[in-house]
Amino acid sequence: MGKVIANMSMSLDGFIADPADGIDELFGWMGSGEVEVPTAVEWATFRMSPASATYMRESMASVGALVTGRHLFDITHGWGGTHPLGVPVVVVTHEPPADKPNPDTFTFADSVETAVKLAREAAGDKNVVIASAKIAQQCLDAGLLDGIHVDLVPVLLGTGVRWFENLATAPARLEGPEVIEGQGVTHLAYSVRRS
Amino acid sequence: MGKVIANMSMSLDGFIADPADGIDELFGWMGSGEVEVPTAVEWATFRMSPASATYMRESMASVGALVTGRHLFDITHGWGGTHPLGVPVVVVTHEPPADKPNPDTFTFADSVETAVKLAREAAGDKNVVIASAKIAQQCLDAGLLDGIHVDLVPVLLGTGVRWFENLATAPARLEGPEVIEGQGVTHLAYSVRRS
Repeated sequence: MGKVIANMSMSLDGFIADPADGIDELFGWMGSGEVEVPTAVEWATFRMSPASATYMRESMASVGALVTGRHLFDITHGWGGTHPLGVPVVVVTHEPPADKPNPDTFTFADSVETAVKLAREAAGDKNVVIASAKIAQQCLDAGLLDGIHVDLVPVLLGTGVRWFENLATAPARLEGPEVIEGQGVTHLAYSVRRS
Repeated sequence: MGKVIANMSMSLDGFIADPADGIDELFGWMGSGEVEVPTAVEWATFRMSPASATYMRESMASVGALVTGRHLFDITHGWGGTHPLGVPVVVVTHEPPADKPNPDTFTFADSVETAVKLAREAAGDKNVVIASAKIAQQCLDAGLLDGIHVDLVPVLLGTGVRWFENLATAPARLEGPEVIEGQGVTHLAYSVRRS
């Protein structure tokens, strides 16, 4: 069975976006390298350092489904109908949008438990990636998370949206990390320790 | 000339102590390994993984003086008169204690600028280490910081004292890091990028 892994780009001081949801400071490593990494969509092609490209290709190949929050779904306009990873996306929301996009790709669930269950079913033997700060927190608190993969960016933002803001079950002890050194990013792959 | 380097053990979510100034979750890597690293005092001997021990020995040998805040000075009771690193310590405070300890070791300064200047003089060609979260922030804002060395601990504390809480000059972009993989800690040595 696949794992449930939270993955975000994060500043050294713990932010995953600036106060206006901007990610320019945090996503630079995905577009500034010499190795092209295509995605499932034409509008997004990564350009990364060789180390990050290898890591990203392996990560992308291991993902079977995504879980995101409603906020991310909204600000990306549902990724135009297809997520760059090209996998099914389960959106956690209490109010599914009236105009549901691409039903082959998007499912809506009203709890993280249901969302992870649906995503697991869609992912089969592959991993489920949680691509939303709040949903990742809720999954950790609910004991649903196997791994936390941080793409740690060498910047202090000082303000913005924190990844880990309201943990109910802290301290949460982790194992690892496995470290991959990119350019403008350090990939840190932690496992969640089960107590 | 030596460098001015901020160094702290930090949780993955950015905390350098729990709400009661506790550091049990963060300092474990210094006492759980197989390699003994003696300090300048009898009451503190580190036991680290081989990688951390090598890194720590090199770091310790490169330090010529420390700058700390008054709070850390107080809660450690002035380290009993001698800091484990065995170097001069400049304490930033507006009110030096009436009963000043060991004048060969401790100096008191009323601003970070003065403290860093005094510490630089004491350190000679060696580095000045800033061992206090707030003082490190103030040094970064004042353009006094050359490096940020994070001993990143695989735990989410959820609450406590944040290292980078009130930066005035964010975003602060960093270079690196140099990565040393310990056990229960990842040493990340960043340089501060001068704009």
